[in-house]
Amino acid sequence: MSSSSSLKTVRQLQVASPVPADIDIANSVEPFHISEIAKDLNLSPKHYDLYGKYKAKLLLSVIDELKGSGDGNYVVVGGITPTPLGEGKSTTTVGLCQALGAFQDKKVVTCLRQPSQGPTFGIKGGAAGGGYSQVIPMDEFNLHLTGDIHAITAANNLLAAAIDTRIFHEATQSDKALMNRLCPPNKEGKRSFNDIMFRRLTKLGISKTSPEDLTPEEVKKFARLDIDPDSITWRRVMDINDRFLRKITIGQGPDEKGMVRETAFDISVASEIMAVLALTTSLADMRERLGKMVIGNSKAGDPVTADDLGVGGALTVLMKDAINPTLMQTLEGTPVLVHAGPFANIAHGNSSIVADKIALKLVGPGGFVVTEAGFGADIGTEKFMNIKCRYSGLTPQCAIIVATIRALKMHGGGPDVVVGKPLNNAYVTENVALVEAGCINLAKHISNTKAYGVNVVVAVNKFSTDSEAELNAVRNSALAAGAYDAVICTHHAHGGKGAVDLGIAVQRACENVTQPLKFLYPLDFSIKEKIEAIARSYGASGVEYSEQAEKQIEMYSKQGFSGLPICMAKTQYSFSHNASEKGAPTGFVLPIRDVRASIGAGFIYPLVGTMSTMPGLPTRPCFYDIDLDTTTGRVIGNGGSKNFYRGRLNNFFIEEIYYKPFFS
Amino acid sequence: MSSSSSLKTVRQLQVASPVPADIDIANSVEPFHISEIAKDLNLSPKHYDLYGKYKAKLLLSVIDELKGSGDGNYVVVGGITPTPLGEGKSTTTVGLCQALGAFQDKKVVTCLRQPSQGPTFGIKGGAAGGGYSQVIPMDEFNLHLTGDIHAITAANNLLAAAIDTRIFHEATQSDKALMNRLCPPNKEGKRSFNDIMFRRLTKLGISKTSPEDLTPEEVKKFARLDIDPDSITWRRVMDINDRFLRKITIGQGPDEKGMVRETAFDISVASEIMAVLALTTSLADMRERLGKMVIGNSKAGDPVTADDLGVGGALTVLMKDAINPTLMQTLEGTPVLVHAGPFANIAHGNSSIVADKIALKLVGPGGFVVTEAGFGADIGTEKFMNIKCRYSGLTPQCAIIVATIRALKMHGGGPDVVVGKPLNNAYVTENVALVEAGCINLAKHISNTKAYGVNVVVAVNKFSTDSEAELNAVRNSALAAGAYDAVICTHHAHGGKGAVDLGIAVQRACENVTQPLKFLYPLDFSIKEKIEAIARSYGASGVEYSEQAEKQIEMYSKQGFSGLPICMAKTQYSFSHNASEKGAPTGFVLPIRDVRASIGAGFIYPLVGTMSTMPGLPTRPCFYDIDLDTTTGRVIGNGGSKNFYRGRLNNFFIEEIYYKPFFS
Repeated sequence: MSSSSSLKTVRQLQVASPVPADIDIANSVEPFHISEIAKDLNLSPKHYDLYGKYKAKLLLSVIDELKGSGDGNYVVVGGITPTPLGEGKSTTTVGLCQALGAFQDKKVVTCLRQPSQGPTFGIKGGAAGGGYSQVIPMDEFNLHLTGDIHAITAANNLLAAAIDTRIFHEATQSDKALMNRLCPPNKEGKRSFNDIMFRRLTKLGISKTSPEDLTPEEVKKFARLDIDPDSITWRRVMDINDRFLRKITIGQGPDEKGMVRETAFDISVASEIMAVLALTTSLADMRERLGKMVIGNSKAGDPVTADDLGVGGALTVLMKDAINPTLMQTLEGTPVLVHAGPFANIAHGNSSIVADKIALKLVGPGGFVVTEAGFGADIGTEKFMNIKCRYSGLTPQCAIIVATIRALKMHGGGPDVVVGKPLNNAYVTENVALVEAGCINLAKHISNTKAYGVNVVVAVNKFSTDSEAELNAVRNSALAAGAYDAVICTHHAHGGKGAVDLGIAVQRACENVTQPLKFLYPLDFSIKEKIEAIARSYGASGVEYSEQAEKQIEMYSKQGFSGLPICMAKTQYSFSHNASEKGAPTGFVLPIRDVRASIGAGFIYPLVGTMSTMPGLPTRPCFYDIDLDTTTGRVIGNGGSKNFYRGRLNNFFIEEIYYKPFFS
Repeated sequence: MSSSSSLKTVRQLQVASPVPADIDIANSVEPFHISEIAKDLNLSPKHYDLYGKYKAKLLLSVIDELKGSGDGNYVVVGGITPTPLGEGKSTTTVGLCQALGAFQDKKVVTCLRQPSQGPTFGIKGGAAGGGYSQVIPMDEFNLHLTGDIHAITAANNLLAAAIDTRIFHEATQSDKALMNRLCPPNKEGKRSFNDIMFRRLTKLGISKTSPEDLTPEEVKKFARLDIDPDSITWRRVMDINDRFLRKITIGQGPDEKGMVRETAFDISVASEIMAVLALTTSLADMRERLGKMVIGNSKAGDPVTADDLGVGGALTVLMKDAINPTLMQTLEGTPVLVHAGPFANIAHGNSSIVADKIALKLVGPGGFVVTEAGFGADIGTEKFMNIKCRYSGLTPQCAIIVATIRALKMHGGGPDVVVGKPLNNAYVTENVALVEAGCINLAKHISNTKAYGVNVVVAVNKFSTDSEAELNAVRNSALAAGAYDAVICTHHAHGGKGAVDLGIAVQRACENVTQPLKFLYPLDFSIKEKIEAIARSYGASGVEYSEQAEKQIEMYSKQGFSGLPICMAKTQYSFSHNASEKGAPTGFVLPIRDVRASIGAGFIYPLVGTMSTMPGLPTRPCFYDIDLDTTTGRVIGNGGSKNFYRGRLNNFFIEEIYYKPFFS
């Protein structure tokens, strides 16, 4: 079968076997100028800003311009409960789009998350897909991109600096002095409030319009935020794996007068601002969300927001370009929108609503938007439906569940799969019984996902060691469990051509939707009822709350935040809270250790166990292998390891690379 | 006189009086598409990468392409010893270029530093010039620009994380385990060194090519950097005014096993990587400089570099786009290159060599490149000559010294000028005697600058309150002190038209150079001899070294770094170390408190007094006044203060804005 498409930018791949290193594949093709990709989407230069030759930011005005036109089909890619090596969700997402766009003449846009730079230099490598299903140029995708994460870091840390400095200035000044500094006189000697101050005044129920008219009591309420240092949940961030910042003490300089405080840095993608970016629907909406982010409480227990600190507008200004998604391309020349990359545990792990919205208009009726949801379907797809779709108002027609024989064998009782250790023989020799036993995990994901009212298509990401009998077993199990279809894919080895059957299945699934979108819980459930609905979907028989969790739930309810959706922070390696429980465990009691909130982003997140929000570097990080050819200006991998270029640390490479555990 | 120029992009300004707010002026014109500005420089799309409509990164290949063609005239802008309000150097730099380009039909490029984002949101505001002499769009200039400072932050902090993690891993592993992790076996079980490791092997004098061949002693030398934590000079950075990070303790998390350490964050522009960016001459040179940055010593006292940590290549990859200067435009449509912005005290305070080099080729013989040197001429111009020109090999023809009546009155004995306090009456009423007395400061700057072999032109930045007699007094003094010319300028009020006389003077000065460039000291002087040569140029009768300074000088000399130029870290508010000594003090002994080094950037920096490398935020930071009009997407100043838009906190606005001191 040869490529057939009306796209002008379709590139026919010449695939080699065995599959070369990702970087060699990526470097073997010259990307199209991104304006060519844009042209295929009927976009003209007024619709985007170029960032070099291979990236462009699409302007939000595209949504307004296409307001009247219809949306395309909306497909979400989730997965079964993964091994620590990942099962190729990004690669499948890209491969499917290459099939639809380059082989099936469909208008298609891939929507992906922007990867954090930290792991790129650490152990994990980049996230541009892999093999013949990749986003290019790989280095631009994995590094600064168009600066969105840098903007998030800047905004996050400006807010952090504002918090500590405000506490400092409040500690050393009278109410009157504070007020006089907050509202300095103009050259006629007149004091006034500015726009952002009226937000706080409104919140405090003060309707006066001049600072001079406030009573001393009102001055105190307005000018003194009285932040309780122990209540501060806002941390600084950095897009680096810097474990030594996991717990730090700040304010030890002599000028800070002993106002020391323990705090921490998270990796930037864990910032609430990243979650805001992913969930916002417009500039005006982003302004409101950024302003209402809660950084902690006053000593009286009232939530203190970014707007209370006077910084919501500046944060929006810092984020004004970041709200525009970045257009890139796949190896086969189909368009990709890269936008936002919130953590998949403490946040919702999905790319942005605005990118999906723009993409759905651009492809139009009959076209396809394929978007990836982080982690297994219990986390990624669940949050996609109950948080992302709830805020966007968009309705998916089809949900894909990516499975591998390897992961199914693990769920069937196979030995541990450990990063850095060679795979046990069980994973590379035929064992149909093990696969069949493991399909219980797949079946649970299928039934959970079907419950949202979408058609479920299982994509089996085939490895060279998988046998026909094993693959057939998965297909049969999937169909028995209610999947609309189940398809074997070889897009890693063959590009879009290897996902043509998947493309056909997805088209049929989208055409044959019979039910409306159904959420797992209504928003007017209490926080606990919502948590329990999700826990039940995992297979839990009940939920256990720590004292701290009870306290936080009570506080958030009292503060008026109980109407928000729930974003569960749970391990991705099991349906339960225990990563070693494979398959589809039942009857367990889900422990809720703590409950936190991202009020601006718009969700409550219960912590099931401990989540690390700052990775570390191994003894020999990926950066050892990264250098620049200063003659050509090209990024090169100068060592033996392919970490930087491996896409996710995935199935394909574990077969090729033998390396010792080095993450001690 | 009306605009006359062959530039296609010249914009005729309609000036209003009194001069409106900077933001209103900036917003009153629609910038040209940056490709139009590029076209006027004979650049085609292959020479640059667009970043939106109004910014483009020029590719370094332009230098190679124009290798054979001649350079234009090279003009550096310095100033007299300033008041804390600044005397309008950036504004004069921009105004002069608008005159040359839009009124005098000269090819001209303005080379400016990229401002730090920190002060933009703090107290100082942006740095795009002011009045009718500005770089536009102002918000893009002052905020992320094209991400260079973000790249510096990322690279700086990756190196910082690498340091602490390496110490951590070395502490818990045997030599053999370390070696095995650094050189993991490939799938055939063979271990090998990668490229960056050969840099360390060469440094250690080990010529073996296989890890297997190293003796246990060599394994120890190679694999164990044995960093002395107390010797670490590398700090983390953030482009935010975050005073609470001035002194911190890191590593307090339980997983870091008690390896706590005191350290600090600097503002990003204080990173050595910023100085490297400003002083590098090519990609290959940048790779070498980044690799040889010294982060501290081993316990044996040997310097440990970024390449020893295996990270020099990754740092270069992070900086590969940052090395390309950003093209923007002035209000009158002349081209501007914005690139690098190293601190003017602990670093050399000049924009980049590569931007100047490209600009000199682009304007060609007969054209003009005007570049600004931070702080007064004793610091900015001195470092421009002795550090920047030494590394670039470029020769300036003319040095401008910007003076204001206000600053000269201060040097003549006028009352203190304090940020945030209304100006004393002495500064706004005629007082020729005070001006004449203050010209001793100007005269010293003229004679110091003339000593480099350039022609000196004094630009008097006129305020509305300056009298004819006062202005004449400065002109006469300047000529008597050996200035080639002295010109009164009104570019703030009138744009390029107000700097036409300055443009004529600069042209004549460039045509009439009679001497070769002469440095203040040869590099083969000892560190102390170099420091003393600079101290003498300040008027000092001697230099006094602290014990710590003596120790450091001895160490750097022993480590082989004594051949580097000197970058004095001294207050900009006096020729001496004492900010309150105005005029031209003599006979003082300059105290050297400490001596540090930026080995990769290529200079030793003695500390004269204490330099803050992390600013703070006031009670009411500029961010209160910054918001986004979410309908138009435009940045707006929503309050009374114009801080964000004020350009430097300069003369022009202090006349207009009355505000209380709020930086407590």
